[in-house]
Amino acid sequence: MSIFIKNVQLNGKETSIYIEGNRIIEIGGPTVEADTTISGKNRAAIPGLINTHTHAAMTLFRGYADDMALFEWLSEKIWPLEAKLSSEDVYWGTRLACLEMIKSGTTCFNDMYWHMVSTARAVEDAGIRAAISGVFFDNLDPAKGKKELEQNIKEVKRLKENSSSRIIPALGPHAVYTVSNELLQLVAELAKEQDLLIHIHLAETEKETLDYIDRTGKRPVEFLAEDGFLGPNVLACHSVWFNKQDIEILGKFDVKICHNPTSNMKLAVGRAISYDAMKLANLTISLGTDGCASNNNLDMFETMKLATLLQKFQTNAQTVMPAHEVFDMATINGAKSLRLEAGMIQEGKLADILLIDLKHPLMTPNHDLISNLVYSANGSVVATTICDGKILMQDHVVEGEEEVIEKSQDHAMKLVG
Amino acid sequence: MSIFIKNVQLNGKETSIYIEGNRIIEIGGPTVEADTTISGKNRAAIPGLINTHTHAAMTLFRGYADDMALFEWLSEKIWPLEAKLSSEDVYWGTRLACLEMIKSGTTCFNDMYWHMVSTARAVEDAGIRAAISGVFFDNLDPAKGKKELEQNIKEVKRLKENSSSRIIPALGPHAVYTVSNELLQLVAELAKEQDLLIHIHLAETEKETLDYIDRTGKRPVEFLAEDGFLGPNVLACHSVWFNKQDIEILGKFDVKICHNPTSNMKLAVGRAISYDAMKLANLTISLGTDGCASNNNLDMFETMKLATLLQKFQTNAQTVMPAHEVFDMATINGAKSLRLEAGMIQEGKLADILLIDLKHPLMTPNHDLISNLVYSANGSVVATTICDGKILMQDHVVEGEEEVIEKSQDHAMKLVG
Repeated sequence: MSIFIKNVQLNGKETSIYIEGNRIIEIGGPTVEADTTISGKNRAAIPGLINTHTHAAMTLFRGYADDMALFEWLSEKIWPLEAKLSSEDVYWGTRLACLEMIKSGTTCFNDMYWHMVSTARAVEDAGIRAAISGVFFDNLDPAKGKKELEQNIKEVKRLKENSSSRIIPALGPHAVYTVSNELLQLVAELAKEQDLLIHIHLAETEKETLDYIDRTGKRPVEFLAEDGFLGPNVLACHSVWFNKQDIEILGKFDVKICHNPTSNMKLAVGRAISYDAMKLANLTISLGTDGCASNNNLDMFETMKLATLLQKFQTNAQTVMPAHEVFDMATINGAKSLRLEAGMIQEGKLADILLIDLKHPLMTPNHDLISNLVYSANGSVVATTICDGKILMQDHVVEGEEEVIEKSQDHAMKLVG
Repeated sequence: MSIFIKNVQLNGKETSIYIEGNRIIEIGGPTVEADTTISGKNRAAIPGLINTHTHAAMTLFRGYADDMALFEWLSEKIWPLEAKLSSEDVYWGTRLACLEMIKSGTTCFNDMYWHMVSTARAVEDAGIRAAISGVFFDNLDPAKGKKELEQNIKEVKRLKENSSSRIIPALGPHAVYTVSNELLQLVAELAKEQDLLIHIHLAETEKETLDYIDRTGKRPVEFLAEDGFLGPNVLACHSVWFNKQDIEILGKFDVKICHNPTSNMKLAVGRAISYDAMKLANLTISLGTDGCASNNNLDMFETMKLATLLQKFQTNAQTVMPAHEVFDMATINGAKSLRLEAGMIQEGKLADILLIDLKHPLMTPNHDLISNLVYSANGSVVATTICDGKILMQDHVVEGEEEVIEKSQDHAMKLVG
């Protein structure tokens, strides 16, 4: 399969992009006979956006419960529903998430949720790319933890053996307040043995950090460093309540950071990431939406805007986290964090490409494309989405959209009914 | 002209809406032969959103300068461009703004800008509704101020005599740090005499408040109260740096408050409005986007979300400013602030109505329409926009969109070129 995109804007110049298989083969070459030719007129090509922290199937809970105190929200609303979730619910919830992502320009996401095999099936069917981990925790009971891990190992094995290259199996220990130190240690060993990414919530709230210190006498990052858990394969999500020393340690181990501004604001975690200190420590910082129960959408354009607005607001500085840095967070930094040859449009990279509608009011006038993408746009400026060399949306149309909307609506309603 | 909308969702029930002239005549009545019949299948009807603070023509500056320190940004980028603005620039900048608003569900806005007569012409041609004031200031020189005011009086008169009922002429003294106390007094007298709204920036930054105290020995609100300036016709925009006593005074005078969360964050003003205190003082609080140089879009859905997220973040409370209150701010409170019979779908009210696409991924599942509108949606969920009983957008199509995009792009490029 091959695609030729002609007369498209790339980095401010008109050029062409030739795709074969799942790779970008040539930029600016002569016209090629391809299976599909796309006109890039009034379109800018940008890399597909990468969402490095979400729980895709939670789209089913979108709007189900908001504006509640955190613990009541979890214990009265979210956990009871999650206890009822079937693998089919997760499949259709993830299909809805994938549809929303394709329509709003996300070509890859990093997921942590129950029924990871169903998540993978939905990702395969939708044509998108994802790192997938099953969420697991032992509520600080290592005996329970071992069982959980065994189940997880089986699921990871199943994905490794049966999936396309678009699926990256990963490990998803939930957080240091839900997973025992013993289990965290086992996870770290397994990740090394099998060269797996680890996806974990870390330092989301001040309470979890203080509770951990009460329980163990150490800060979470201190323990994880000593324990051999930290490394370049670890993606620490939220990452709000680190102190200076934590950030130094994380930098030393090249841990990847995922910033979730929208969720951090909605759940009132009280602080934003320490962006400047993290940059100084050479940390790779990417962006995530979190799940739809705490956001409530998967629009990475909105997340880019909120990332910098929140940082400006918190630091009283209009100049912090300028647009081009935010854009890198949502593209190349995401790719680095998930160890993907993506996040930029370059010969040899994966063909994960968006065509942006330059005649959209939100993209007019076009003084600065990156500023418009970060500060003005939302997902609706994406006209065409290509992932892994295949067209998933062309001129705003995704095949099979109606079925996904209907089935996911049905599953959501039965779940709460 | 009449419109019959059949089988539409309104407050969770299927019903019909009959519009004649510019009013909603009947809800839930029998099928009527109308000039236009619209199917409301898979659509929810909601009131058109009301943006109570913007500078519409500044869409021309979208993305022209971001991520700069406030004073440099103004003095090196914004003011030099504004000095070159022609009335045709303002016309096409406002047309672009109106197009963006119509596409994203705003049917009425409150504007303050140069060349107000051009703004009004653009509003008339676009079919939208607006309160329009010319920005004016005297840099604390009352002699200069009197001239400015005279010019403004002429323009207000011109609008009063020549405009449709969709145009509400208003007075726009810029702020207490740019307008002398003498001029503010004249404005207040004129507003009373002619029963005009006053649109003013107030308490946006801490610096302007402290500077005013340095200069006059009084807090701005204290002076404005003693001076007879404050009243129910005053719309105070930004309203961030009020203290308790200010809020009490504002409540006593029934001053209207406009919250601009996106701009407040981007310009790093350091605080959000004191929402709970304002509610206690029975203040009417509405929402504004501010201009596109400091936002950089006019999407009131995004502004609704940011309004509550910022408040949650600032107060460390997940429960503050719940979705239905935010929705009221963007609809009925906006209508109250601009003295309009709008902001709700009710027989006798102005026919300013949106039809929302319930099959949009961002609106799925539909556990709670208002939550989805506030927390999940962006402007692209609006399928149809009706203002003053006329269809301005049907199924996402606005007549003449291409011309507006091209002309505004040209004017923007010439301006910076």
